[in-house]
Amino acid sequence: MIYEDEAFMREALRLAEKAAAAGDVPVGAVIVKDGNIIARGYNQREAGHSATAHAELSAIEAACRAAGSWRLHGCTLYVTLEPCPMCAGAIINARLDRVVYGAKDDKAGACGSVVNLFEMGFNHRPILKSGILEEECGTVLSRFFAALRAKGK
Amino acid sequence: MIYEDEAFMREALRLAEKAAAAGDVPVGAVIVKDGNIIARGYNQREAGHSATAHAELSAIEAACRAAGSWRLHGCTLYVTLEPCPMCAGAIINARLDRVVYGAKDDKAGACGSVVNLFEMGFNHRPILKSGILEEECGTVLSRFFAALRAKGK
Repeated sequence: MIYEDEAFMREALRLAEKAAAAGDVPVGAVIVKDGNIIARGYNQREAGHSATAHAELSAIEAACRAAGSWRLHGCTLYVTLEPCPMCAGAIINARLDRVVYGAKDDKAGACGSVVNLFEMGFNHRPILKSGILEEECGTVLSRFFAALRAKGK
Repeated sequence: MIYEDEAFMREALRLAEKAAAAGDVPVGAVIVKDGNIIARGYNQREAGHSATAHAELSAIEAACRAAGSWRLHGCTLYVTLEPCPMCAGAIINARLDRVVYGAKDDKAGACGSVVNLFEMGFNHRPILKSGILEEECGTVLSRFFAALRAKGK
């Protein structure tokens, strides 16, 4: 299972690099069902001029389109960074079985860092796993912000 | 201000009726800037087969397209039902100035009922007002659910 989790997180990391290449904070996500990736997403907030274009939300929307349903039972979401409240709420709304994230987000994380939305009495509670490829997921972010600082942005 | 709030909530109620007509839980939303409606949305979860197609999220996405920016400074969101965690999180992400809602949501409300996401230390805190046209906003929902029960669904 850990080997499989790492393999899917590597694909999420590859998607995070696509976000960075377009000037967006590098976060990537995939959704897996029965061992297959059914949806991909990466952060496009700046490129898409959209407050909702986070990696997880884009992946959930793509998975709903693929499944033809708003219910994503039996699916696992892999994301390189701990979901924010919007994305954690979307995970609840979509009834995802399981969430696996890489790096923690001390400022906006809603899966244990600032709050844990999955333990607050809402009507669905996914299984939560953190720390898969945590170092790589953190490094892609710190490298991005270091490059921004070097440009004086 | 209360007269203006009621006028914009009436438009949100009109949009909620569009959701109901398509078989979706009737929730409607508008986003206002400088006294003008710049975006509208209504719940299309069932019709759109999408876990993220809530009224508020649709309105925020439309407002970002209209503004050409993920930042919705200076805007107020009106919604007939208290936002869920996903939508409250999107409100934070979009930096909306103000949120006005009608009816409370005891089961999924993230603006005071189950939790208040705007008071948990995240990096933006909109002004919050509730109870505008609360009775009408609640009635549109209870009528929808009564009709569903009558159909034995």
